[in-house]
Amino acid sequence: MSLVIVGSVAFDTIRTPWGDREKIVGGSGTYCSLAASYFTRPRIVGVVGRDFPRKTLALLKSRGVDLEGLKVMAGKTFHWEGKYEEDPNRRTTLRTELNVFADFRPEIPARYRGSRIVYLANLNPEHHDYVLGQFRKPALVAMDTIRLWIDTKRDALLKELGRVDIFFANDEEARLITGETNLISAGKALVGLGPSLVLLKKGEHGALVFGRDFVFGVLAHPCEHVIDPTGAGDSFAGGFLGFLDKTSGLAGKDIRRAVVYGSVMASFAIEDFGIGRFLKLDRGLVEARFKQFRKLTTF
Amino acid sequence: MSLVIVGSVAFDTIRTPWGDREKIVGGSGTYCSLAASYFTRPRIVGVVGRDFPRKTLALLKSRGVDLEGLKVMAGKTFHWEGKYEEDPNRRTTLRTELNVFADFRPEIPARYRGSRIVYLANLNPEHHDYVLGQFRKPALVAMDTIRLWIDTKRDALLKELGRVDIFFANDEEARLITGETNLISAGKALVGLGPSLVLLKKGEHGALVFGRDFVFGVLAHPCEHVIDPTGAGDSFAGGFLGFLDKTSGLAGKDIRRAVVYGSVMASFAIEDFGIGRFLKLDRGLVEARFKQFRKLTTF
Repeated sequence: MSLVIVGSVAFDTIRTPWGDREKIVGGSGTYCSLAASYFTRPRIVGVVGRDFPRKTLALLKSRGVDLEGLKVMAGKTFHWEGKYEEDPNRRTTLRTELNVFADFRPEIPARYRGSRIVYLANLNPEHHDYVLGQFRKPALVAMDTIRLWIDTKRDALLKELGRVDIFFANDEEARLITGETNLISAGKALVGLGPSLVLLKKGEHGALVFGRDFVFGVLAHPCEHVIDPTGAGDSFAGGFLGFLDKTSGLAGKDIRRAVVYGSVMASFAIEDFGIGRFLKLDRGLVEARFKQFRKLTTF
Repeated sequence: MSLVIVGSVAFDTIRTPWGDREKIVGGSGTYCSLAASYFTRPRIVGVVGRDFPRKTLALLKSRGVDLEGLKVMAGKTFHWEGKYEEDPNRRTTLRTELNVFADFRPEIPARYRGSRIVYLANLNPEHHDYVLGQFRKPALVAMDTIRLWIDTKRDALLKELGRVDIFFANDEEARLITGETNLISAGKALVGLGPSLVLLKKGEHGALVFGRDFVFGVLAHPCEHVIDPTGAGDSFAGGFLGFLDKTSGLAGKDIRRAVVYGSVMASFAIEDFGIGRFLKLDRGLVEARFKQFRKLTTF
C-alpha cells in the first residue's frame, strides 16, 4: 500500500450564492489525501507557508496522511479565490496568489520513492519529468490537469498524456484537449493519446470511464444542496486511487468499484465548505453511501 | 396487456449539422408506439391527413400497433420543422403546421376504453378531461408535455399533474415548471405536484426517476454519433410503458427495468433519421442493448 499525491495544499476563498468563506483550507493535495485516507495511508508531497494552520496538519496526520513530503517554507501559503454561480459546474477564478507554490520543485522523500501509485494533481506538465524521475518504478502513474496548462502548456501536456496510465479530466477539459464535442468521442480520443484509463468527470451527471474496449459509468449521488463544489474532482481522484491502492488489483471489477468510491468521496466533499465534511466523516458513512450508489443504479 | 397512446402522427423536417431530411415520418405517437411494440401491442389514437403514406401505416400494423384509433382525415398531416445544433440537446422549432391536428379531438374507440395504461403524449392539457373521460378506469395514466403548454397553459398543466400517475419531463421542462435549478430538487418538486412517479430525461446524461421515497437513475447508452435526436423522449416513454404493460407489475424492480428499456429504445431512436432505426430492429437487438446497459453500470 503506497500512494503518493503531489499537489497543492492551499487556502481558498470561496464565493457561492449560498455564502462565502475567507481563506479556508483547500488545495488538490489536501482534498485528495483526505479522501484517500479512508482507504489507505496516502503520502503527500507539497508545500505550505508558515501561515498554514498546525491544527490542519495535525488533522491530516490523525487521518493517517504521511506528511514527510509536505514542506513548510518561509512565506505565505498558496491562495486561490473563486466564485460559483447557481449552476455549480460554472466557476470563475477571481485571484491566484501562488506564494510559496511559485518556486515549488517537488522533492520526493527517499521513503516514498518505491511507491506503487503516483498521482500528479495539477502540476505544470513541464515538471512531471523532474518528479517522476525521482521514483523507481511506480505501477501506476495518474494525472489530472487544469485549464491553465491546456491553454499555455499544450505540447507538454500532450507529451505527458503519452506516458501516464490514468488521466482525470472534467468535460470541459476533455473537449478542449481533444476538440471533440461529443463526450464519448472525447473520452475515446483521450485514450487514443496514451492513458490506458480516462476518467471523465461530469459533475452532477456523474462520471464515465474509458479504457481500451472498456466503458463504465456512474451517476452522481443525488444531491439537492451543493454547498461548495471545490475539491470534488480531487476527492474523486482520492477515493479512486485510495481504493485501488488498498485492493492492489487492477481488474475491471476493481476499476468499477474504485470509480464508485471516487464518486462517493466527491459526493461528500460538496456537502460543506472546504474540507468541512471530511471532519465529520467515518468509514461507516462511506460504506453506507457506497450502498446507496448501488441502490440508485441497480436494476 | 393494453396500452393506449394518444399523440401526434406527423411529418418532420429535420435539419442537423450532419444532414437534412424533408417531411419524413415522425410524431410522438409514432415513436412511442413503435418503441412500445417491442414489448406489447400498443393502441394508438391520433389523426393523419390523406397525404400520410400507406406504407407507414402498414409498417405500424406489421409491428403489431393497433390502428383503430388513428383517424385519416381530409387535409394535410401535421408538419413540424426543427433544427439541431452540435449539442443535440439544443433544438429550435422552425415551423409548425398543425393541419388536421388543429381540430383534433381524440375519440377513443369502444374497444380501447377498458385499457390498463393511458399515455397522453403532447396533448393540450385542457383536452385531457375529454380524453380521460372516455376511459373506464385505467390503472395508470401517464403524460408528457411540451414547452408550448408550460408557457401558455400553465394552470391547466398543473391541474393535470395533480391527477396523473406518471409524468415524463426533460431537464428544461422540469426546471421551467418548478422553478428549481437543481435537477434533484426539480424532480422531487414535480412529485410534490401529484404524480407518484416522475421520469426526468437528461439526454446524453441519462434519466432520473423520482417517486415518494424512491430515486433511481440510468446512464445514457454511450453514443458517439447522434444522427437525429427527434423522438428520443417518446421512444423512452414507449419502451418504459410498453415494458410495464407487458410485465403488469409495478414494483420497484419493474420500474427500474422499465426505465432501462426506455433508455434502450431512446438509444436506438437517435441512431438514424426519423423512425429509420426501428425499421431494422428486432427484439434480439433490444435485449443485447439491455445487457450492454447492465455492463455499463454494474459494479
